[in-house]
Amino acid sequence: MQQDISLFQTYDVKGGPDFGRRNLPKLRAQLAELGLSGFLVPHEDEYQNEYLPDCNERLMWVSGFTGSAGAAIVRLHDAVMFVDGRYTLQAAQQVDDALFSFEAMAQGSHMESWLRAHAETGEIYGYDPRLHSPSGLQKLEAAVALRGAELRALATNPIDVAWNDRPPQPLTPIRVQPLKFAGKSHADKRAEIAKSIADQGADAALITAPASIAWLLNIRGGDVQCTPLPLSTAIIDKHGKVDFFVAPEKLTPEVQAHLGNEVAIKAEGEIGAALAALKGQTVIADPNTSSAYYFTALKSAGATVKAAQDPVALPKACKNAAEIAGTTAAHIRDAGALVQFLHWLDTTAQSGEVDEIEAATQLELFRHTTKQLRDLSFESISGAGSNGAVVHYRVNQDTNLRLEKGSLFLIDSGGQYDDGTTDVTRTVPIGEPTQEMRERFTLVLKGHIALATVRFPEGTTGSALDALARHPLWQAGLDYDHGTGHGVGVFLGVHEGPQRISKAPNNVALRPGMIVSNEPGYYKTGEYGIRIENLQYVTPPEDVGGERKMLGFKNLTWAPIHRALVEVDLLSLSERDYLNTYHAQVWETVSDLVDGDVRDWLKAACAPI
Amino acid sequence: MQQDISLFQTYDVKGGPDFGRRNLPKLRAQLAELGLSGFLVPHEDEYQNEYLPDCNERLMWVSGFTGSAGAAIVRLHDAVMFVDGRYTLQAAQQVDDALFSFEAMAQGSHMESWLRAHAETGEIYGYDPRLHSPSGLQKLEAAVALRGAELRALATNPIDVAWNDRPPQPLTPIRVQPLKFAGKSHADKRAEIAKSIADQGADAALITAPASIAWLLNIRGGDVQCTPLPLSTAIIDKHGKVDFFVAPEKLTPEVQAHLGNEVAIKAEGEIGAALAALKGQTVIADPNTSSAYYFTALKSAGATVKAAQDPVALPKACKNAAEIAGTTAAHIRDAGALVQFLHWLDTTAQSGEVDEIEAATQLELFRHTTKQLRDLSFESISGAGSNGAVVHYRVNQDTNLRLEKGSLFLIDSGGQYDDGTTDVTRTVPIGEPTQEMRERFTLVLKGHIALATVRFPEGTTGSALDALARHPLWQAGLDYDHGTGHGVGVFLGVHEGPQRISKAPNNVALRPGMIVSNEPGYYKTGEYGIRIENLQYVTPPEDVGGERKMLGFKNLTWAPIHRALVEVDLLSLSERDYLNTYHAQVWETVSDLVDGDVRDWLKAACAPI
Repeated sequence: MQQDISLFQTYDVKGGPDFGRRNLPKLRAQLAELGLSGFLVPHEDEYQNEYLPDCNERLMWVSGFTGSAGAAIVRLHDAVMFVDGRYTLQAAQQVDDALFSFEAMAQGSHMESWLRAHAETGEIYGYDPRLHSPSGLQKLEAAVALRGAELRALATNPIDVAWNDRPPQPLTPIRVQPLKFAGKSHADKRAEIAKSIADQGADAALITAPASIAWLLNIRGGDVQCTPLPLSTAIIDKHGKVDFFVAPEKLTPEVQAHLGNEVAIKAEGEIGAALAALKGQTVIADPNTSSAYYFTALKSAGATVKAAQDPVALPKACKNAAEIAGTTAAHIRDAGALVQFLHWLDTTAQSGEVDEIEAATQLELFRHTTKQLRDLSFESISGAGSNGAVVHYRVNQDTNLRLEKGSLFLIDSGGQYDDGTTDVTRTVPIGEPTQEMRERFTLVLKGHIALATVRFPEGTTGSALDALARHPLWQAGLDYDHGTGHGVGVFLGVHEGPQRISKAPNNVALRPGMIVSNEPGYYKTGEYGIRIENLQYVTPPEDVGGERKMLGFKNLTWAPIHRALVEVDLLSLSERDYLNTYHAQVWETVSDLVDGDVRDWLKAACAPI
Repeated sequence: MQQDISLFQTYDVKGGPDFGRRNLPKLRAQLAELGLSGFLVPHEDEYQNEYLPDCNERLMWVSGFTGSAGAAIVRLHDAVMFVDGRYTLQAAQQVDDALFSFEAMAQGSHMESWLRAHAETGEIYGYDPRLHSPSGLQKLEAAVALRGAELRALATNPIDVAWNDRPPQPLTPIRVQPLKFAGKSHADKRAEIAKSIADQGADAALITAPASIAWLLNIRGGDVQCTPLPLSTAIIDKHGKVDFFVAPEKLTPEVQAHLGNEVAIKAEGEIGAALAALKGQTVIADPNTSSAYYFTALKSAGATVKAAQDPVALPKACKNAAEIAGTTAAHIRDAGALVQFLHWLDTTAQSGEVDEIEAATQLELFRHTTKQLRDLSFESISGAGSNGAVVHYRVNQDTNLRLEKGSLFLIDSGGQYDDGTTDVTRTVPIGEPTQEMRERFTLVLKGHIALATVRFPEGTTGSALDALARHPLWQAGLDYDHGTGHGVGVFLGVHEGPQRISKAPNNVALRPGMIVSNEPGYYKTGEYGIRIENLQYVTPPEDVGGERKMLGFKNLTWAPIHRALVEVDLLSLSERDYLNTYHAQVWETVSDLVDGDVRDWLKAACAPI
């Protein structure tokens, strides 16, 4: 089948102050009708995914704000918008400050502290219980109680009522993820999860994370961009039987046959009755992925709720041999496209005339030439010059900069393929880099190498390894304000847990088969950004010469690290060996996928330093 | 005043099976009289200190076991002993296996799992609520409830009744810690703690950790070995007034004058009435340092208990300028003694005829020559050959080995001085070390240097830095099974919190003035042990050339690191520079404190490599 070459990423300016001007009055009319003083609007939707379908972009609808994190509280006569430091500037541009006041958002606690200070006696704030975590809601309840106000759970979200041109729920057909890529049948996976449920003394588990359901049932979908997810919900019992709540329009006969007799297909609306039927049972629910709605419903039903991690999360994170083989192949395929793009950057884009959108588009076009690209795994971060220093940058027509001589260009991107998900960042000089750029790039590289080569004993967490990647920067009085590594799925989410490599304490030990990114960076505000990112997976304990077997990492990503940015004198001999060996492997892995000028360029780009 | 030269450390074999044979029947007679089926015997005493006064060595009295961690459950017809891996061998030697069965002790949960499996319907287990943490007790209660048994809190410990020759409570006179060493008056400290209590919305805090009381009131005592503590209890209110519960025999007129009007001195027996008087108040109590007895008493009194960290712990950990100056001086003084000892090890002890007790005694004698040694800060770990591989080794007459040629000798020791507390480990070759010893010593040294020189941003925890010290060992398939660093007091406990550098997750950020040990190691069971330990303290954020100010460490400990164990080729240039600079500083700091052969030896020991 010929690949459709329409592009996945768009660069239109979204959101903007007109949204609030148009929609805030509509929401307020609803609130007045319901006798509410205010309404809580988190960014999250009922699936708690990174990407929301258009119909669930409620915060954008009411305010015009399109950032990936934020919240608002709308009252009858005023409204307040909460955004974190990343989005202060963007919110000021997108949201009408005559309609909304702005509050800096501390991690997690924004609505709570506002309510604690501003809620008034007798006020009633409505909320949609499907959009709030149980622990978050408890804090909000305590905050309003302190002020003599109250919260009221609403069965229907008033935004959904007021939003008359609301897009329909996505109904993309579900596809079977073939066994050759999944590596394990869903019957085997269900048996494994059933055992873990029984081992925890529970009768069943509620699974609301669509990525968990997709992995468990070996299915994929297309309801949101960048992640092949079928939005749906499931309950699995301790015998491995599943109730799968999903819009029937998404199911083909092939998928129904694949799911078989032990997976009962139910309409999404039946979840309430199914929860009520769990009376007397002990049910695992994950407070980090399932909303307060489910906890309340289970308790009302007379079930015992066991708050514990989604039992699918850890098995999903530890990739089996087929998943590793698949993602390895996907990464090599992706590397072919990437190398063509890096050649283009090192030649065409050296003119100084190319812009960020052209560059991101060019990269996507190269990925399309694989004929196997299913989607991007996220919207490419294509940051020229000062935009490269904006960690969560997404280019649009308004922000689009040219790749100018004497600057750095940072591009963080990835693809979704049937057999794997990629995520890679490279930083490339346009023209001649400064000495400072080279030195700081090399410090980032040293941290990247330390994390690529580290050996560690069983039980080690990503938090314990994080400092290895920062150490060279710290010694120079530098650091970066993001995590060093996140989990990555196989033809699933580009960000997944439960493991991560970051400063934040995390009790999850790294286990064989877990894929993590290795992406230290450095950002000089207003000037340039540097990041080097490969994906790597955890290898089993092996003898490395001492008495204790050690885990380690195996690299997945193959693309030259720009030699003009490496200050060789700052590397130790073993770091230099690492870089030369890596480049030799890039050449070996990718050279047959490219030819002509690109191949010649690759040869030079992979030459020893 | 002439220093008394009687030695602090003794090497007698303590404990042994006779204790159980003699005392178990006495305890059982008490249990029968009280109508109890069994009794819980933790190692901890009511002060939860590392060191117990002789009168509180209840576990030793009933079993003969002298390890620093363990527990027993004694029933009318059987008894079980819980020890962890460190003490398996020792327990087998000290405890009669006809009287006790043995259970491997998992961290914390030993008694609970045994009761869950073995308690019988209708059984009543007595316990002393002053010896159990509130959270530990809750788990034990759940465990017995599951089996239809129950726990009963006893007002008097039946061991104390049965133990007819029980030593008296220690009544060592309290001394004032002079302002020149404390750096801050107790009035200022009380005001600071009072503010923290008020800031947490509480009315008062219960302080049961004697080290916290000693720091808060600028007093020291001598009720236990190795730590200058007055066993006592205190309540401080939000205005800074203190009720100080202490045996009146310990108070001199000087101390009473020092304490002044805002510190009310009360008999220890009055604590119950004082807790009862807290009705209606919110009282901070630390579940990690205060036992269930206090939590129950406060709740019964009608107080609201706020379980939170002892408010003294963090201010005590962040040393002020006078404390840093004091401990700096103490470390230099201690270094003079240590260098004499290291010279002795490199000359006299090279004969192969010296034993571990002679070596430890010799070191203590050198420390006594300072004429200012108040105590050892812990019993020296003097481990020759295979004993060096026993991480928590304490030499006695039975285990005493000679320092034989071709072996390594590890000595971990410290002194208590009025102005500071030291803790240092050096590893020294006796005769010619093997290539493997040199290589592994050098890997440990590389880890030590990484942690000595690291720069880090504010908010960084010790858990985040731990891997830096292990990294070189991990790469070679090696590791060590202990933490990398613990907090250290100033003329107080050699182990203190809340900070630590270890694999275990810890949310306490390192702050300026905190003292920590830097002590990576390597242990080859049955052959040799290696550890290199200096103390270092956290320095304030400073400009190190980049955009962000960074914290770092300043070294306190001055003693040569044995050059014959360093494999120079394994060091990077900067590691070599570190070692040479460190040695130059040792020479500069210590050379004037020694003369003759010792000075000549020091010169050579500090020569550049």
